[in-house]
Amino acid sequence: MLSDRSKILTESIKRLLRRNALSHLRKIVNKTHAADLSAVFPSLSFSNQYKLFGMIEDIDQKGVLFSELDEDTLLNFIERTEIDETVEIIENMAADDVADLIGKLPEEKANAILEKMEKGSEEVEGLLHYGDDTAGGIMVPDFIALKENTTAREAIESLQKEYADVEMPFYLYVVDKYGKLTGVCSLRQLVVIPPATPLKSFMSTDVFSVQTDMDQEEVAKLVARYDILAVPVVNPMNELVGIVTVDDVIDIFRKEATEDFLKMAGAGQEFVETKSILKSMRIRLPWLFASCLGGIFAFFVIGQFEEGLKKFAYLAAFIPVIMGMGGNIGTQSSTIVVRGLATGLLNIRDIWSVVIKEFAIGFSLGIFYGTLIALVAQVQYNTIQLGLSVGLAVVCSMSVAALVGSLVPMIFARINIDPAVATGPFVTTSIDIISVFFYFKIATFLLKI
Amino acid sequence: MLSDRSKILTESIKRLLRRNALSHLRKIVNKTHAADLSAVFPSLSFSNQYKLFGMIEDIDQKGVLFSELDEDTLLNFIERTEIDETVEIIENMAADDVADLIGKLPEEKANAILEKMEKGSEEVEGLLHYGDDTAGGIMVPDFIALKENTTAREAIESLQKEYADVEMPFYLYVVDKYGKLTGVCSLRQLVVIPPATPLKSFMSTDVFSVQTDMDQEEVAKLVARYDILAVPVVNPMNELVGIVTVDDVIDIFRKEATEDFLKMAGAGQEFVETKSILKSMRIRLPWLFASCLGGIFAFFVIGQFEEGLKKFAYLAAFIPVIMGMGGNIGTQSSTIVVRGLATGLLNIRDIWSVVIKEFAIGFSLGIFYGTLIALVAQVQYNTIQLGLSVGLAVVCSMSVAALVGSLVPMIFARINIDPAVATGPFVTTSIDIISVFFYFKIATFLLKI
Repeated sequence: MLSDRSKILTESIKRLLRRNALSHLRKIVNKTHAADLSAVFPSLSFSNQYKLFGMIEDIDQKGVLFSELDEDTLLNFIERTEIDETVEIIENMAADDVADLIGKLPEEKANAILEKMEKGSEEVEGLLHYGDDTAGGIMVPDFIALKENTTAREAIESLQKEYADVEMPFYLYVVDKYGKLTGVCSLRQLVVIPPATPLKSFMSTDVFSVQTDMDQEEVAKLVARYDILAVPVVNPMNELVGIVTVDDVIDIFRKEATEDFLKMAGAGQEFVETKSILKSMRIRLPWLFASCLGGIFAFFVIGQFEEGLKKFAYLAAFIPVIMGMGGNIGTQSSTIVVRGLATGLLNIRDIWSVVIKEFAIGFSLGIFYGTLIALVAQVQYNTIQLGLSVGLAVVCSMSVAALVGSLVPMIFARINIDPAVATGPFVTTSIDIISVFFYFKIATFLLKI
Repeated sequence: MLSDRSKILTESIKRLLRRNALSHLRKIVNKTHAADLSAVFPSLSFSNQYKLFGMIEDIDQKGVLFSELDEDTLLNFIERTEIDETVEIIENMAADDVADLIGKLPEEKANAILEKMEKGSEEVEGLLHYGDDTAGGIMVPDFIALKENTTAREAIESLQKEYADVEMPFYLYVVDKYGKLTGVCSLRQLVVIPPATPLKSFMSTDVFSVQTDMDQEEVAKLVARYDILAVPVVNPMNELVGIVTVDDVIDIFRKEATEDFLKMAGAGQEFVETKSILKSMRIRLPWLFASCLGGIFAFFVIGQFEEGLKKFAYLAAFIPVIMGMGGNIGTQSSTIVVRGLATGLLNIRDIWSVVIKEFAIGFSLGIFYGTLIALVAQVQYNTIQLGLSVGLAVVCSMSVAALVGSLVPMIFARINIDPAVATGPFVTTSIDIISVFFYFKIATFLLKI
């Protein structure tokens, strides 16, 4: 497995460092892909990181390492390295990765680096103007744009000359004399067509493009839906300004899924397990506050029924099952809605049909489990009013939970707030309070407390 | 947004169907990408689906539509369509998509189709032998494999002739005379190198490959880590048998993330909101059973303390907050572990360091929230033993929850059971029972019930 490989690599590098086996280390470092090295770095001291880094012979690999390192390790490394060395590496990185990196640095450092850069700094500054999570923020300005009357032969020649640096030249974009995008052809078409054919006569004019301000998730969905390798990004004048490539799309999907997982669990939005205990605590503490407040609220709700509880102490024994059933079906509903919206399987316009369906499911499953749990109560205490109270409470709790669990994320999505944050602690906590309240209200009424 | 576009398309197609505006429909159907049409189909009746389908002029687009339709719609469509028509479309689809499709059909139908196929059926049957979720099961057998002494010119010629059908020819694989994979070169290298150069002299020999039985998630991680567009699949003899392309990798990541979301919420593993209420209920009902059993168990635990509850009825009021705090931190821990393992940020070998760290976080946050909640109890009831019981119960509940929440998925991963199923209902329910038990044990002791 990939993670096993990282572990083994880390262990052998650490062993070689301890033995100071420099020539052996140099060999390993230079035959290992920088993406693999980036997984080793976080567990090394700065001086060892620096030692390994100095051994990398290919400056492009240094750039790949920079763009793959996790944020904490990278910032620490740059902070402690000479600025000239950093600039040299950055100049050999893709502009979008540099813009990402610069965006993470303290302002002072970022400006110092941009000033020192001899090439590419305008490109990077251009990218920095776009929102982080937009097509503009993730695009690369390395693309191939050719005029309509360029021939296939000329296009191939340009691949050898002015476009020799373009990283992934699978599509050649065709623009008119104003630089506006008019078509696209593939590298494959180029090699199989007679060399004198102008691009115009075989390019596909049916070319998807996205605006610079489109949200990165939407861009990613587009690339996934149409199975393309890159999508061109245009400004409001339809001028080609960059492309978003499929490798970035994969990163977007993985990052967004991780964020949604963590948000739904109320554990921040960035993966924290690799951070220190204190940092983890700081991120997780505030989300638990919602649950704590909700619990205290539930305490006051139950406090109101203290007299009833003194008479019928066994009422307390059903609190967990009623809260649990509501909580679990609520989590099912909100997970389905949040993930459905994220993948496009659900549409925010369908809010009512989804919520009504969830309510129907919650109600039906509530009848099923309510009956079951009421029977247990009946067998145990042989009080028909108690069985009835518990059963009805389960029905209410599960129906309301499915309703709240689906409605809340839908509403949040509708008003453009990330539905994932609305879920987890908030929905669960409000369902807890509602469940307990219904339960005691029903019991008070039926048991005539 | 993409989902808005589907909605608008669906509405206009439905309107045109009602008005029976056939020529207008035909125009729309043929200028719409099949991936977009596939989003429209589920909301149409079979006869309308069939009408639209018949309008598609390009048989390849019919194939794309088949591979993009959701399972229910597709099965229903094939069931009601003449087999000859189905076979004709299938013969024009990529072999991996056909294998997927055939795998979903009832055996009888599948065999009938395979028998009728005039071309490609052996390829498909070959793919059907591999596990669904392995490299073999998702690879396409369309790839370019050339001998080492082929020249760049000959390679380009082969793109025009025998490999004219290969869908995504970004990499040309080089094999020795036994068909064993020895190198790779890119289409781009091919066009910029002098035409008489043999592949052997400029190919990269540093080529990643995967075995046919490698799990699809591992394959996807590899493609993502090294930012490649396709990875070659080899059999145990190192003979090239297929490639996995980046578009399939995107689908794998999205599908696996959705599965993990649903499993963690105990809502099955396939997205159900688009299914009928009854089908949804059937999938969600069993998972709630864990929660129901747990709740009934908690009821018996509390029942043991009925005498204590009669004397100190207010003890019941703290059940929700203690359960809630435990449940929420447990969800945080297990989400971090499950997602960390899925993304490779955590390693199953680190089981003890992760679990100890989670326990430490649970304990520390437990002290914080325990103190807070104990103070509320103290202010409200002015009984030092009650405050102390509640506070200690919160500490216990949160520490144990973080421990269980991280340990259980880690152990499951270690014994090769999907950690996502271990979470959700099971972990939450066991934490509920443990929390309640500790609470009443501590209270019984301190309040001398």
